[in-house]
Amino acid sequence: MIYIIKIGGEIIDNPETYTQFLNAFVTLPGHKLIVHGGGKLATRLADQLGIETKMIDGRRLTDAESLRVVTMTYAGWIGKSLVAELQKRSCTAFSLCGADGNLIKAKKRNDEIVDYGFVGDLNSNSINTTLLMQLFEMGITPVLSAITHDGNGQLLNTNADTMASAIASALQQYEQTALLLGFGKAGVLMDMNDDQSFLQKITFNESEQLKELGKIHSGMLPKIKAGFDAVAAGVHPVLIGHAKHVSAVFLNPKLSTQLSVE
Amino acid sequence: MIYIIKIGGEIIDNPETYTQFLNAFVTLPGHKLIVHGGGKLATRLADQLGIETKMIDGRRLTDAESLRVVTMTYAGWIGKSLVAELQKRSCTAFSLCGADGNLIKAKKRNDEIVDYGFVGDLNSNSINTTLLMQLFEMGITPVLSAITHDGNGQLLNTNADTMASAIASALQQYEQTALLLGFGKAGVLMDMNDDQSFLQKITFNESEQLKELGKIHSGMLPKIKAGFDAVAAGVHPVLIGHAKHVSAVFLNPKLSTQLSVE
Repeated sequence: MIYIIKIGGEIIDNPETYTQFLNAFVTLPGHKLIVHGGGKLATRLADQLGIETKMIDGRRLTDAESLRVVTMTYAGWIGKSLVAELQKRSCTAFSLCGADGNLIKAKKRNDEIVDYGFVGDLNSNSINTTLLMQLFEMGITPVLSAITHDGNGQLLNTNADTMASAIASALQQYEQTALLLGFGKAGVLMDMNDDQSFLQKITFNESEQLKELGKIHSGMLPKIKAGFDAVAAGVHPVLIGHAKHVSAVFLNPKLSTQLSVE
Repeated sequence: MIYIIKIGGEIIDNPETYTQFLNAFVTLPGHKLIVHGGGKLATRLADQLGIETKMIDGRRLTDAESLRVVTMTYAGWIGKSLVAELQKRSCTAFSLCGADGNLIKAKKRNDEIVDYGFVGDLNSNSINTTLLMQLFEMGITPVLSAITHDGNGQLLNTNADTMASAIASALQQYEQTALLLGFGKAGVLMDMNDDQSFLQKITFNESEQLKELGKIHSGMLPKIKAGFDAVAAGVHPVLIGHAKHVSAVFLNPKLSTQLSVE
């Protein structure tokens, strides 16, 4: 089994849940990999530097200055801090991004309506599965920040949920792969103010209805899309839930929202 | 042959010399590794964030805020940008720091006179040569930022020249190793304003005399010490010179300052 775990700023920012996550993560057996963003920390640094943060549907518009900020925050501070904590727990980890070893090659988004800037989109050939499997064989846990490159020297910002989903889908060819799109809530909530209101299971059709009703919006949109892309590729289980429960949710998927075909 | 190249902020900051360096570096045959700092960029970011930069004898005092700044700048922006440029040139590279895979374990400096903060010192067991050699065998060029860890979750700032020297000295047990402590000048200058005034060769005794005369000072002090430590470990050649001449200096060491026993 390969475990792909996506974590975000919410878990990293809180020392208590961060420690819970780390302690649980290292107990996962077999091959495992973290994909992390760190949105809030990047936004805070951008604020301190007087750089305006612009988001559309949970996706960050990335000009040259913003790219520098997210690369510094994700690949620099968060990635290397995570690795130091994992090494402390005897988990041999490398903090890498998509440019390292050409692990993830993306294409700069060319959108006719919105200029997303240095944002990279993935395709079915983006993931260097050979090198990822080689790292697993060496006993290394990759810790991937959501930064990719175009192969021509340009770093690109990529949505971490999308990246985790693409990696899980690509590795599924080699070995049964499980995916947790972790964040600071117990799952897909029906009431934003009640953490216990999460759905234990959601199908694609149900998610479409909830989008129409406005119950699924903002940052949950790319998360849901990423999740169902992985479901379609055969990844199982695909969970959306609290990253601090990273080992428990794989033992009992009902502790989170499981995305399923029907 | 293993080539260990240290580069600093001066080369990275200048687009012209940076490109020259990159184009020359990828032509080096065999195993190669970059150690980089990026002092000026870190200082600029610290300034923007209102964090005061304090240096003593070319070494940075590193409080918690400064550690975050250097980790973001070195391991984040510079490391990942370097890797994107190397991949563009078909050089398979991983940007790592000492925490990654426990590559370099340091000890927090405990100085009775000066509190250096989160600064890590290396010893003869610091370098994980097994993992470095494994990466070389995989065809990977490690790009190491001058950040280490204590094995207990704490990142530490380490002088890049010292780190390059320690890596070269440790790898010398496996294979003949060459070291270039690169910077923005042609070598050890006798006249700071004349780039052609560099010494082609310097012995340890000569360096001691030049220190007493005040001709060697500031950032050159750790560089000279690091260089002669590598000489003592059998690394050959050990050069101090312009990083943009990275391939030429190994063909003709007279283009830089060669450190030699006598």
